[in-house]
Amino acid sequence: MKEIEKEEKGLGVKKDENFGEWFLQIVKKAKLADYGPIKGFMILRPKAYFVWEKIQEEFNKTLTELNIENAYFPLLIPESFFKKEAEHAEGFAPELAYVENTEEGERLVLRPTSETIIYDSYSKWIRSWRDLPLKINQWANVLRWEVKQTKPFLRTREFLWQEGHDVFATNKEADEDMFKILSEYKKLVEGLLAIPVLSGKKSKVETFPGAKTTTTIEALMPDGRALQCGTSHNLGQGFAKGFNIKFLDKEGKSKYVWQTSWGISTRLIGAMIMIHSDDKGLVLPPKVAKNKVVIIPILFEKSKESVLKKAEEIKDSLKKFSPLLDSREDRKPGFKFSEWEMEGIPIRIEIGPKDLDNEEVVLVRRDTNFKEKVKWNALSKKIEKVLEEEQRDLFKKAETFLYSRIDQADSLEELKKKLKEGKLVKVYMKDDKEIEEKLKKLVGANSRIIEDSDKSGSCVVSGEIVNTLAFIAKSY
Amino acid sequence: MKEIEKEEKGLGVKKDENFGEWFLQIVKKAKLADYGPIKGFMILRPKAYFVWEKIQEEFNKTLTELNIENAYFPLLIPESFFKKEAEHAEGFAPELAYVENTEEGERLVLRPTSETIIYDSYSKWIRSWRDLPLKINQWANVLRWEVKQTKPFLRTREFLWQEGHDVFATNKEADEDMFKILSEYKKLVEGLLAIPVLSGKKSKVETFPGAKTTTTIEALMPDGRALQCGTSHNLGQGFAKGFNIKFLDKEGKSKYVWQTSWGISTRLIGAMIMIHSDDKGLVLPPKVAKNKVVIIPILFEKSKESVLKKAEEIKDSLKKFSPLLDSREDRKPGFKFSEWEMEGIPIRIEIGPKDLDNEEVVLVRRDTNFKEKVKWNALSKKIEKVLEEEQRDLFKKAETFLYSRIDQADSLEELKKKLKEGKLVKVYMKDDKEIEEKLKKLVGANSRIIEDSDKSGSCVVSGEIVNTLAFIAKSY
Repeated sequence: MKEIEKEEKGLGVKKDENFGEWFLQIVKKAKLADYGPIKGFMILRPKAYFVWEKIQEEFNKTLTELNIENAYFPLLIPESFFKKEAEHAEGFAPELAYVENTEEGERLVLRPTSETIIYDSYSKWIRSWRDLPLKINQWANVLRWEVKQTKPFLRTREFLWQEGHDVFATNKEADEDMFKILSEYKKLVEGLLAIPVLSGKKSKVETFPGAKTTTTIEALMPDGRALQCGTSHNLGQGFAKGFNIKFLDKEGKSKYVWQTSWGISTRLIGAMIMIHSDDKGLVLPPKVAKNKVVIIPILFEKSKESVLKKAEEIKDSLKKFSPLLDSREDRKPGFKFSEWEMEGIPIRIEIGPKDLDNEEVVLVRRDTNFKEKVKWNALSKKIEKVLEEEQRDLFKKAETFLYSRIDQADSLEELKKKLKEGKLVKVYMKDDKEIEEKLKKLVGANSRIIEDSDKSGSCVVSGEIVNTLAFIAKSY
Repeated sequence: MKEIEKEEKGLGVKKDENFGEWFLQIVKKAKLADYGPIKGFMILRPKAYFVWEKIQEEFNKTLTELNIENAYFPLLIPESFFKKEAEHAEGFAPELAYVENTEEGERLVLRPTSETIIYDSYSKWIRSWRDLPLKINQWANVLRWEVKQTKPFLRTREFLWQEGHDVFATNKEADEDMFKILSEYKKLVEGLLAIPVLSGKKSKVETFPGAKTTTTIEALMPDGRALQCGTSHNLGQGFAKGFNIKFLDKEGKSKYVWQTSWGISTRLIGAMIMIHSDDKGLVLPPKVAKNKVVIIPILFEKSKESVLKKAEEIKDSLKKFSPLLDSREDRKPGFKFSEWEMEGIPIRIEIGPKDLDNEEVVLVRRDTNFKEKVKWNALSKKIEKVLEEEQRDLFKKAETFLYSRIDQADSLEELKKKLKEGKLVKVYMKDDKEIEEKLKKLVGANSRIIEDSDKSGSCVVSGEIVNTLAFIAKSY
């Protein structure tokens, strides 16, 4: 019986051995998400949705500080809107889903992103310099009819995100806004989800359809693939021209506006799961764990009542950590340990008959399995400290991993070899469409970030002398 | 010039004279919402979305207290799911929108409500009594392809809402849950939005498609129409049987579950606007006003600098009220007063040169226009008090109105007459489909709430002796 329980409860696969399957098992067995009845659609179960709510809560504070207001625009967009900005239209065309023909006379698109419908409104709302800057964000669901294999959190046909849309009188302000948001994304993702990221500009090929400049934060997954965790674009004036968004400046001259857009999504939760979790199951950064503590009483017939009573008392005293108490009598402690490790509760507290005499409990950290005895009267303070340490250590561990995987290469051969080792490889590369597409074919990876260098070197593809460095990696 | 400004800024229509047009003008000119490019779709502008965020914040607290967790289920639902509960299928069929044919083989519905897709998951998640109760809520957008005339907030093809879906082992628990949620809705709507409501059961005709019992909170609009502000259903076991949701009880017997579902939506914002606003524009209950105060300096050439300086100081000292300072020099104070009254800022503070000597300001309440002088050092406390009074008085005024409009009738003639006077009329009525449909035809109104009475009387339609009383009103 115990063996069966174990089999049912374990992941049945190791992170090192089959990373893809390990991820799917965690998602399922830690009750993070479930497949919906339609291919490529996912159900965000409460534990994962709680993480999303924490992301919202935290980022809403930033929005308030930056005087960005939340609003909500329609899900359905007239197809014609997608044709007003040529690159945008081309970029999104393959992924659009449509509502069955209605009385409207034109096809209606389920939003894959909302630049077009929002800027249609902006063209009506903006009249003069007094209306600028205009800064609006929306939290919404979006649909992209992916043809690639979908994967929970990372690539689903519907996902939740925020999309910010700011409008300025000058390019300088738009550029500053783009970088400001990017730095806020980095702060959020590193501080809340303990995911270390690199940040920088995207190459021309990787730039958002319709944007002048795209910036990104990139994380590295344990399997050596990079994951884009957030992007912030300076859209220039392309949409302003497509949607005729003009303002009268202080001199009464009519001018096109400058715009930014930026977004993060529920894919962040996927990155968080991949980076921190282990062969026992989910590891959650304490800041996004709803239940930060689980109390497991060690029950023997003789002392059961007094142990349970004390466990209840401890639970009451730890309310601020939303503790769980697992008092099931038909399950062995070891079984319970495994179950709550799978679910990613950051701290386990064990209390047995001996602990009653010593007025202490055993405290176990989920990430390191480190055990220590803690006196009852010191418990609350200790938990606070351990949660902070756990949050910090998860970040440090991931940061060490990230920097251990950054490398460089001077030739395609070397690049290929290092990519196979799961590395993020810096190479000289010309920022050019043809060159990058060639690179993609040759090594099966693309640029994640591109940056100007003080020095120059030979482009890894063409041999030309250039002074742009690209971070190359396989990606999700 | 001043006249033109006034004309541009005013509503141009009175609440008493053309209620429908007055409402549309407020929605537009107070920047609450805008029409989207597609018929029946609305843009929630920041001011209205802020109200929605306050509703979410407040109701999320209730959810946490009740151990109800938030989650997110897919937007698209297989059409076949809608056929598993017959009444539900019939009720929603006319309003469904579909995604254009895909590779899925069956039509996909844009969710009008999520019972079906959520209960498909519940049938997989629920195994034993240990899994009950299961209580999940989602905040989401829903689509109902309305054929009736749409109206901002009250009837739009897409709207935002929350839908709660609880599962229990017994009917008793489901009934208790239904009433508990209803009472929480009443508390929320009355406490936050200052909308007084009546609560009770719906008649058979008005019961939610697929529910055993529907309960409702109903508000009365100034034009005498009732508006359903929230509903809570005991679904019985109909969906449990349609979706095969069973659990093993403690004795190991397999049983169908009992379920509730319940929802409130952005239509609450429409009710709030209608009830409190006036001929000058929006009146917002202070609790849902982002900017609770606007400061208007009275500027003369000589004293301009010192008045502005003081106005800035006051603004800084009132940060917790998110004050606005309107220091535009090309607008007269009277123009600014009108503009901020239109926008519904609960308190206006005027400061002019004389006030500098007396160390005071003039404070004006939006709802009553009551003016008083307040010393600088007493201002913050005073504002807090006035905001509380304003919130309370708005509720009281609406409550007085509601109860002044409740009446009764013994005959169809009397009923018709009183409905014309914009009343909510209590009559004896048999709770029967045919009877109520007949009533609808005869008087152009339907039942909002039905209740058992100690006494009996003649059904207003059939003359039969019954002991059920119905509240009849025209409705939105």
